[in-house]
Amino acid sequence: MTISMYTASVPLFTRALGALSAVLGKGAAFAEARKIEQAVLLQSRLAPDMFPLARQVQIASDTAKGCVARLAGVEVPSFPDTETSFAELQDRLARTLALVAGFTPAQIDGSEDKEIVLKFRTGEQRFTGLDYLSFFVLPNVYFHCTTAYDILRHNGVELGKRDFLGAR
Amino acid sequence: MTISMYTASVPLFTRALGALSAVLGKGAAFAEARKIEQAVLLQSRLAPDMFPLARQVQIASDTAKGCVARLAGVEVPSFPDTETSFAELQDRLARTLALVAGFTPAQIDGSEDKEIVLKFRTGEQRFTGLDYLSFFVLPNVYFHCTTAYDILRHNGVELGKRDFLGAR
Repeated sequence: MTISMYTASVPLFTRALGALSAVLGKGAAFAEARKIEQAVLLQSRLAPDMFPLARQVQIASDTAKGCVARLAGVEVPSFPDTETSFAELQDRLARTLALVAGFTPAQIDGSEDKEIVLKFRTGEQRFTGLDYLSFFVLPNVYFHCTTAYDILRHNGVELGKRDFLGAR
Repeated sequence: MTISMYTASVPLFTRALGALSAVLGKGAAFAEARKIEQAVLLQSRLAPDMFPLARQVQIASDTAKGCVARLAGVEVPSFPDTETSFAELQDRLARTLALVAGFTPAQIDGSEDKEIVLKFRTGEQRFTGLDYLSFFVLPNVYFHCTTAYDILRHNGVELGKRDFLGAR
């Protein structure tokens, strides 16, 4: 096995987003057991000017699907940000995982030097493929998966590091 | 440029831990401005059974230095977990960054199939080098950097995603 742009991205997203889906499942079970409306947790945030749980999940999804599409040089599929339940967020993660799994090593490998352009409200940002993966995609995917986990932990959901890391 | 075990680890740790040090600097400035004892923030946690800020930083350091040492096949340097101020935690990160920077691509590249054995209280865990980096090291480094950031954000320190991602 030799590390490649594919092995350094797709399997990591699969593990992280699969683990996030299971973490959300524990959030849903917690809400059910305590008779808490799901929206209370889905709109929970760690600071008034941070994104709530639902948005953390949407951004984790967007970052992963954006990565594989951009490295492969295809249009980034857009998912509407309309989820209002744990089940809908899990469905979004399932669709993200299916999309990511549809890319092959041949589409993604060798993209180290490919020019990646991200458009923000504040302007454009340009990366090589390797810098985009290393300094934008991976930190962001894990940031949003971790913050989703931290929001649920902060609200009392029983989770451990193993839930975050995913099945081994 | 071709991705390798070195380019997929050392530069990511350098960026993430450098950003974490700057985040801690903002925490120290916040404590100073508000006349809050540093220990209040350093012992802050998001849930009673989660680690406090200081420990999050120590584990981020341990995970990064453990990775480069294990992939290179040298003994993992041990740092005592004795930090009681932001400055001491920043010094630990500086020592971690210097240690990580001391490894060369020749020491780390080609370690994809190297057997890595982690010893926990609950037993051993075995990985290939690539699985160790992909499914243990990177998720854990970013988990602890993110949770440190989240703890400070939750306490009112003015931070944004750029602080987490680090200088570009």
